Amino acid sequence: TYFAGIDIGSTAIKTVLINAGGEIVGIHVTDSGSLFHKNAKEALRVLLEKSGVDRAQLKYLIATGYGRKLFKEADDSISEITANAIGAHETGKAYGGVRTIINIGGQDSKAIQIDDSGNVSNFVMNDKCAAGTGRFLDVAARNLDLDLEDLGDIHFTGSGAPLSINSTCTVFAESEIIGLLANGHGKAEIVAGIHYSIAKRTVRLAKRVGIEDRVYFDGGPALNKGLVAAIQDELQRELVVPQYPQTTTAYGAAVLARSEFLAEQQEGH
Amino acid sequence: TYFAGIDIGSTAIKTVLINAGGEIVGIHVTDSGSLFHKNAKEALRVLLEKSGVDRAQLKYLIATGYGRKLFKEADDSISEITANAIGAHETGKAYGGVRTIINIGGQDSKAIQIDDSGNVSNFVMNDKCAAGTGRFLDVAARNLDLDLEDLGDIHFTGSGAPLSINSTCTVFAESEIIGLLANGHGKAEIVAGIHYSIAKRTVRLAKRVGIEDRVYFDGGPALNKGLVAAIQDELQRELVVPQYPQTTTAYGAAVLARSEFLAEQQEGH
Ligand code: SF4
Repeated sequence: TYFAGIDIGSTAIKTVLINAGGEIVGIHVTDSGSLFHKNAKEALRVLLEKSGVDRAQLKYLIATGYGRKLFKEADDSISEITANAIGAHETGKAYGGVRTIINIGGQDSKAIQIDDSGNVSNFVMNDKCAAGTGRFLDVAARNLDLDLEDLGDIHFTGSGAPLSINSTCTVFAESEIIGLLANGHGKAEIVAGIHYSIAKRTVRLAKRVGIEDRVYFDGGPALNKGLVAAIQDELQRELVVPQYPQTTTAYGAAVLARSEFLAEQQEGH
Repeated sequence: TYFAGIDIGSTAIKTVLINAGGEIVGIHVTDSGSLFHKNAKEALRVLLEKSGVDRAQLKYLIATGYGRKLFKEADDSISEITANAIGAHETGKAYGGVRTIINIGGQDSKAIQIDDSGNVSNFVMNDKCAAGTGRFLDVAARNLDLDLEDLGDIHFTGSGAPLSINSTCTVFAESEIIGLLANGHGKAEIVAGIHYSIAKRTVRLAKRVGIEDRVYFDGGPALNKGLVAAIQDELQRELVVPQYPQTTTAYGAAVLARSEFLAEQQEGH
């Protein structure tokens, strides 16, 4: 008996498979591409294949994320705020419990406050402005002619202090980055400046829900160790960064799939 | 005896020369480039040369705009809000007087309310977000592989209704434009959609200062007839668009240069 969560985001599709005991037995992440629905079905197929599980053994599937409404194969769907809260609450138990979640996605950023039971008590979301989202990192990497995955390491290689990026707007920051390069500044110091710029914005967002320990940081950009360091510095506290930060929300959907299935079974008897 | 105003903006340097009677005798507009100060000096030199006026005949020069502080050659400097108000008030007389100014610059947008004497009674400015500024037009033209100057004409060539651009963020709108193109939508309908998107934002900005007749529209993007039509449609009233919308602010600085010079002369006697 298996359960799955699928998080169909604007940038990536994340899938998590758990077993009857609630343990993670498979993870698969792929690009969303332009054919959300087709790619989501394919992602699920690959997840099951990689995990050696038949479709028939998958008892309950919950979809979440931006593209969840178009994905009719799921037994149920849930908002990404709730799924993220459930996933972070479960994952956070191993770290002594978490109360604040910072999530940076490909095209949005959120701060969620949860209570001791993992229920959402407050949240704020930005999906209107590219600044402070993963998109800013994409744009900056392109301007700097660097790979997105390398930004985290490059952050720590500078000999000088992080440069300040004065524009909060991604579009204006692009010109600023190009200007800094033209003036002979090092890429490492620029990259660190970009991370601090996102970190400042993220901390402002998190302050709007109220920051309580421990603070959990997830979403693809949480893989970026330079960004993690910058946020920790701005926040003046440690972050809990899970092993697979991209899949917390999909994991939350899988956890809920399992409990909904168990609840339905109990009702059935 | 001549007077000049120089408006050193982030995108273009605008200069206007007026004579003792206050009539415009020369206009010169050039790119700001990266060497503001050098280019501003050169722009002034070209203005005088084109107008057949010697430097010694230029009695008073006022600088305005973003780069005014770095330009020490000027006799005085003035904020672009005040200069814009003076220029629009003077120019607007021929149209029966104006009370609201909408200015869209290369990297900012403003709405200014003036009283019957041309004094600023209220203003709002956006220089933090590229949406609603000329920068959005630059980015969109690039995405559409069109020349910026052609957007205004292309606006009117579509056979279908303007497409709606849902993202207010320039960065997210870029992806939307690319998606619309990929789905086979016509460039004209996309261009019109972009103009309406900027128009909606501009009208929201103008409403914050209060809209009173007549409404004057200036700044480089006021040369774009499609954008003018979209703003008029959203505003549900006619706009006063001057013949040289780019130089209203520089003209305001020149008008003030003339009156400051005349005032100083009177004091001197
Ligand atoms: S500030 Fe820049 S990044 Fe943010 S919404 Fe405006 S254009 Fe987009």
